Order: sequence, then structure tokens, then C-alpha cells
Amino acid sequence: MKEFELIKKYFTEQAVNRKDVSIGIGDDCAIVTPSERQNIAVTTDTLVAGVHFPHSTSAKAIGHKAIAVNLSDLAAMGAEPSWISLAITLPEIDETWVGEFCAGVFELCEFYNVQLIGGDTTQGPLSITVTAQGLIPFDKQITRNGAKAGDWLYVTGEIGDAALALKHVLGEFTVETQHLEKLQTKLGFPKPRILAGQALREYASAAIDLSDGLKSDLAHICQASNVGANIVLEDLPLSFELIDSLGLEQAIQLALTGGDDYELLFTVSEDNKVGMETALSNCGVSVTCIGQLNGNDKITTTLNSKPAVINAQGFEHFTNND
Amino acid sequence: MKEFELIKKYFTEQAVNRKDVSIGIGDDCAIVTPSERQNIAVTTDTLVAGVHFPHSTSAKAIGHKAIAVNLSDLAAMGAEPSWISLAITLPEIDETWVGEFCAGVFELCEFYNVQLIGGDTTQGPLSITVTAQGLIPFDKQITRNGAKAGDWLYVTGEIGDAALALKHVLGEFTVETQHLEKLQTKLGFPKPRILAGQALREYASAAIDLSDGLKSDLAHICQASNVGANIVLEDLPLSFELIDSLGLEQAIQLALTGGDDYELLFTVSEDNKVGMETALSNCGVSVTCIGQLNGNDKITTTLNSKPAVINAQGFEHFTNND
Repeated sequence: MKEFELIKKYFTEQAVNRKDVSIGIGDDCAIVTPSERQNIAVTTDTLVAGVHFPHSTSAKAIGHKAIAVNLSDLAAMGAEPSWISLAITLPEIDETWVGEFCAGVFELCEFYNVQLIGGDTTQGPLSITVTAQGLIPFDKQITRNGAKAGDWLYVTGEIGDAALALKHVLGEFTVETQHLEKLQTKLGFPKPRILAGQALREYASAAIDLSDGLKSDLAHICQASNVGANIVLEDLPLSFELIDSLGLEQAIQLALTGGDDYELLFTVSEDNKVGMETALSNCGVSVTCIGQLNGNDKITTTLNSKPAVINAQGFEHFTNND
Repeated sequence: MKEFELIKKYFTEQAVNRKDVSIGIGDDCAIVTPSERQNIAVTTDTLVAGVHFPHSTSAKAIGHKAIAVNLSDLAAMGAEPSWISLAITLPEIDETWVGEFCAGVFELCEFYNVQLIGGDTTQGPLSITVTAQGLIPFDKQITRNGAKAGDWLYVTGEIGDAALALKHVLGEFTVETQHLEKLQTKLGFPKPRILAGQALREYASAAIDLSDGLKSDLAHICQASNVGANIVLEDLPLSFELIDSLGLEQAIQLALTGGDDYELLFTVSEDNKVGMETALSNCGVSVTCIGQLNGNDKITTTLNSKPAVINAQGFEHFTNND
């Protein structure tokens, strides 16, 4: 176990040194001192090799993703990330691997001014658990339960790309060479929508980050807010690479059900639409209105104003039944 | 993975409902709001099956220990525990196991008024990572680096019992039946010294919790504080069960090197000795002075005022070399 002590040095070589961290790594606990009248958002996510990422994933991508998925949860609440605790279980010491893993971790931490304040390094099957914390002005957090019937449904960026890249890695689909790099970057190096989340504090009625897939994650908002929703399928923001690889129908299906996007899904009242779109544009984040909430208790989908559902074979149109 | 979603219900059935938790389990993040002028202590520890506890350990003991080892780190800083995030990776769903694990977790949480605010449940080899947080009045934390030459060295409770119980579990030593229950309780259900830690805020110059073993953990204080120390071997607090099982010499050796005690090791100036002993007595915690710090850069041991070292065969006395 002594070797595991030794590699702790990799985790102490960070550039971020926040003023609200009185004691960082090295004592029994870290000590942090948030400024007054701030709430603290806390989230924990575990990534297990072979479950949450393929065994072939690069160390840098694993490090990036372990941080990104947690920062994405902070983004969905509107929090500004501040402190990270990182617990890593490694089957063996491979200093090169650890160095690349740390590069992935610290690149994101430095970009968002997040300080690694502690953690644990243990021996066992590869697994990473991160607890991320962030700061939010008092009572400005965005929850899942504030959506109202009539609110508009929005998503940041483009969706479905990460799920297609995963199919490629798992050998379920072969992506053409010219699309591969962009799609694999979306899977391996998701960008947490931190700035968008903070901008949305003033405008969104509810928000969640897309980890399980659009329909699953929308169901969480609908359940928490006691609303239904309709998704306008032709409005889903799909990349050229996704449509070119799968065709439109399969692309829409994957965008609805595939996970790992780490975009924000959020709801905005009619009154806040213009303000929100201006604020997000100022952050340089593209957003797309993909539907509207209603008073029903289910999630429906329409294509060109007609009800349409998708199954494994593609769309099932109901145009003749209307 | 749906089954793993379902067992999350076990983790939401807790009795603790703290006022400083605005949002608990169920959104992208928990939201906590500490009162003003408080520092927050943060610690993370991972327990891996087969590494940090034998595979035969009961689910309740694993749940207890995962919380206790983290609360012990909070105790060593003088923090009052407040919030826990729990990430558990399970090889399979066994509802009975999960129920007993949660009983172990929540028994400690309820006793110390700690709220589980989030976590993650994933599939993979058994492993538990807990991030525990606690509150400390502004600038009252106890660190490892405040010890001075001349300060007295103290330990709470009795030490060495957990290490002997581990030897029994691993088949390296057979403990007699009449001692087994007490020793196994010390290993499986360590008591974090929360009240003692808070009482020590006003008196201790440095503190650490005993997880690796007395000599190893004392070395952390000595290194951080730039002092040396002498341990008076005949003053070590050893249980009747430990001495009766091993004899005095081997008992002392195990108390020096064995881990898993989760007692507090701390240092107190001459001026604070009486006040500290009174305060700890009021907490119902026994403490024992086991040595003194000095200006050397090493850790020495004496027996009956003579230098003495211990190796695997027992004491090596240097009385003839003085």
C-alpha cells in the first residue's frame, strides 16, 4: 500500500489555490470557508470501469469525465464549482496512467477554478468517485420541481452524438472515419455547461443535466414538477455527423434515448424566453426550443405537428388515426 | 441498471432532517446552507472489500465502518458532523444486504445528527466511498501542525484491540472465545470520538485519528509540526483482553503498529493539561498520557525510563548500552 501513498503526490500538483480553502490536501480533513449568504451545492458520482466507460477509454478521458459529470450536476443547479474530493481505486500503480488521468482532472479544474481539496487512493478494481461542491447565491438554485404547464422546453448544444460514439466503441455501429474524432470527443470529453447554468438562475423554472437520455431525464422534471411535456421531434438539435451516420429517423431516436450528452435540459416561462435566449447567447451557448410543457401526466412526441412515436424500427406514425 | 435505481429507496428512509439542508436527496445536487462564521471540514474515505475489510464482514459492520472512519477524520479536526454523501458500488442486488448496510449507516447518522444528502449507487466490485462534512466555529479547527516540543502526547480509549481482531479474522491468531465479542466489536464497530474532538478544540495543539497505527500516525504529527516524540511504552492503554491474549510485550507491539483503532492521538501543552483532562472527563472519554514531544526529529520509545525498541520478536532492550 506504500506505493499508493507515493502516487498521492500527483494529486497535490495543482495550479488552483482558492482563497476560500483554508486547508487543502494533507490533514485529516480539508477546511473551506464559503463567503456569507451563499448556498452550497453538493453532488457525488461514481464511474466504474466497464460500466460507465469502456475499459479501452484513455486515462485522460476518464479523468476529464469523472470531473465533468459532477460539474454538469452543479451546472444543472446553477452553481459555480468550487471544491472537488476525488477517491480513486486503482488495480495497480502505473505512473504514466496516473499522470494522464491527473492531466484530465486538472485541465477541467483549472478552467473552472475548482480546487482538489482531498480524497483517497486505494487498491482494487478501477473506479472513481468524485464529490463536487459549488456555490450559489442564497435561494438562487434551479431545481427540477419548478416547471409549469405552458413553459417552453429547451436544450443546450446538440444531443445524441455521445451515444453514437459509444455504439462505435462497443462495436454496435461503425462510424465513418471523417466523423469519428468529433463524435468521440463528445463521448470522452463532455463540456459541463457551467456558464449556461449560472446564466439560467434568473430565467429557468427547472433544469436537469442530460446523463441518462432526453426522455428519461425529462421524465424526472415532469415527475418532480407534476407536468407533462410534448417534444417536437423535428426541432431536436442534431449534428450533421449524427444525421449523416444514421439517417434522420435513427438520429432522432438516439437523441431521445441515448445518454452521456451532459447538455442542460431546462424549462422557461413565456415571459422569460427572450431574456434567457439573450443571456445564453452572451455565454456563447447555443440553445434550442424542443417542445412545451402541459397539464397532462405523460411525455408525448410530435413530428410535423402530428403525433409520432419511435420504436426500435424507427417512427411509428399515427397520421391515419387522427 | 434499473434495479440499482430501485434500491435507492433504502437510502432515502432516514430519520435525520437538518435545518441547514435546503434540498436533500432527489435533485441534481443537494443544497446546504451553513450558518455564518463557520468553517466546513470535508473528508473522503473509500473502503474496498478484501482490502479495507475482510469479505466475511457483516453488511451492518461495513455500513457502520464506512461512516465511522469518515466521522473519525472529522473528530480529529474538532468538527461537528453534519452531512454525508455515500457512493456504493455493489456486485449485485441483495435487498437484505442493502437493508442491513443502511441500518449500520443510519444508526451512526442518527446518533450524531448527520444527514445523508446524496450519493450514487452503481454496479461493480463492492466498494464504498463516503464524503463527510462537518462544521467548526471559525478558526477553531485542530490541525496536525501545531504541536510543540514539550507538549504532552495523549490517546483516547484503548489501542491494539482492532488489530488483534483482524488477525483473528484473517486466521493469523486465534482469540479465546471469552474475548472475541469485545475485540470484534472494536474492529467492526469503531466509535468515532466526535465529542472528544469538539472538546479538544480549546486545548489540543495537534490531533490525528489512529487509522494506520500509533507510530505511523504519530509520524504524521511529528512531520507536520517539525518535532520528535518519545512514547512511554508502559503507559500505553491496553485492554485486559489484549494483554491476556498476547502477553504484555506482544500487546505493546500491536498497540504501536496495528491499525483500525480510530481513537484520537493528540498533543497538549503543559498549561492545557488540567483543563483538557477535565473537559474530556466531562465527555465520558478516557484519555491516557503516553509520552512527550521533543526537539529531535525522530520517534523513540522507552520502557521503565530506559530506551527500548520492539521488533517482531518483542522488545530489544538497550539497558546494557546506556
